[in-house]
Amino acid sequence: MEIDGLILDIDGVISRGRKPIERAIEGYRMLKDAGIKVVFVSNNSTRSRRIMFERFASFGIDAEEEDLIIATHATAVYIAREHGKARIYTTGEPGLQEELQNLGHELVDYREAEFLVVGSNRGINFEIFTKALRLALNENIRYVAVNPDKVFPAEDGPIPGTGLIIGALYWMTGRMPDAIVGKPSKIIMEQAIERLGLDRDRVAIVGDQIDVDVLAGKNAGIKTILVLSGVTDESNYRKKVEEVGVEPDYVFRDLYEVAQRLTSSK
Amino acid sequence: MEIDGLILDIDGVISRGRKPIERAIEGYRMLKDAGIKVVFVSNNSTRSRRIMFERFASFGIDAEEEDLIIATHATAVYIAREHGKARIYTTGEPGLQEELQNLGHELVDYREAEFLVVGSNRGINFEIFTKALRLALNENIRYVAVNPDKVFPAEDGPIPGTGLIIGALYWMTGRMPDAIVGKPSKIIMEQAIERLGLDRDRVAIVGDQIDVDVLAGKNAGIKTILVLSGVTDESNYRKKVEEVGVEPDYVFRDLYEVAQRLTSSK
Repeated sequence: MEIDGLILDIDGVISRGRKPIERAIEGYRMLKDAGIKVVFVSNNSTRSRRIMFERFASFGIDAEEEDLIIATHATAVYIAREHGKARIYTTGEPGLQEELQNLGHELVDYREAEFLVVGSNRGINFEIFTKALRLALNENIRYVAVNPDKVFPAEDGPIPGTGLIIGALYWMTGRMPDAIVGKPSKIIMEQAIERLGLDRDRVAIVGDQIDVDVLAGKNAGIKTILVLSGVTDESNYRKKVEEVGVEPDYVFRDLYEVAQRLTSSK
Repeated sequence: MEIDGLILDIDGVISRGRKPIERAIEGYRMLKDAGIKVVFVSNNSTRSRRIMFERFASFGIDAEEEDLIIATHATAVYIAREHGKARIYTTGEPGLQEELQNLGHELVDYREAEFLVVGSNRGINFEIFTKALRLALNENIRYVAVNPDKVFPAEDGPIPGTGLIIGALYWMTGRMPDAIVGKPSKIIMEQAIERLGLDRDRVAIVGDQIDVDVLAGKNAGIKTILVLSGVTDESNYRKKVEEVGVEPDYVFRDLYEVAQRLTSSK
């Protein structure tokens, strides 16, 4: 396995919610010490890069803010590159709003919008749904979703992901987003590969979900490493491979074991 | 056209929102004077029969409360007949809650529920979606939707219907309701035909929507009359017939013309 750069999923690889995963930080340091480049990719649609950066610092991870490819930020970058500065109505939370404004986009009421940006919102309400509905019904509006995640496993049980809004709009209007930024989409992966600045045959993604991380790696044409420190474990691994129809190139118990393997050959 | 009983859609036939449609009340009185039985059917998922009854009284319609087959009430009746008194978690508004309780059902938190009843709610929020999601993920929970309406034409533009919640749950879980009560479902139509107490070949539905009212009439095996006083007009009539694939037996301008035709042959 000749790898010069890794794209690390965060939830289930580095941490679970706010808690770091045992040995993951040690694994990260081993990788860095061996000269392997590392960036982080997350489908999170509610947090800004700045918030995630602060959390990483508390874990003892010395990444730069630019190494954090959060779907909120990646969405702002995508729209800026496709269109330039845009007038945006978003369903999303302050973390997404902050990222959109940081890239120079203007947050406006739905009547003035050119873009509808759908991100999850724990403060979702009927008025937000009504505005998003009216924009989705308008073919002249570009519709971008931060990620396609359907359900998120919270501590006390499943909670809705961004798919809550995507699904509601699809059912009411027949329309799907024009672009989805988060994994398994290539959009966020291309930004991560670009940040690494390496040939893609020397890059791998490390993640805990076959239908998200492994599929994203396949879509981007890089190597794929599944770790069993998140939602996938030995008991459901084969079943998920069959469901999704893609197989990871390598399987390790956790990031520490990935680091052991990669650094032993350096 | 030999008709002894009519099932009248409300919105687009009798009224638009809170305003009666011109000549509709006169048409209703002509029908009653000629001895034609009339009941009313509405997919409304937020109002109780009592509220609709008060509105009808203000229009000068002297129907009995039992003649109003509102989807909220029809849902409570359906569950009582299928299951008996049930422990229900509902996404719905007080109008739906009132109807469920009137039939002896118990409204409970989602952890205690046997039934998930989905009705539209202008106070919808993330917590309600989370509870509905967890119930929809549980195969032991019976899931009933008050109506399948996707979008509702409000005065200032389209707003989400009950389909907002049905679509979100379907997208997140892959699950559709076990039963949908409102038109074009047969469930509400059977309750209306039962109230009329007539053979179905002497009964017709009068409505303004081909995919809702005319389809409901076909599903129930009764005659179908389209009126052009609501969302369907002469310019879009043929297009909608082709889209839905069903054709009304008769087309009239409004309820008044229906009444003229039916009472002239009496």
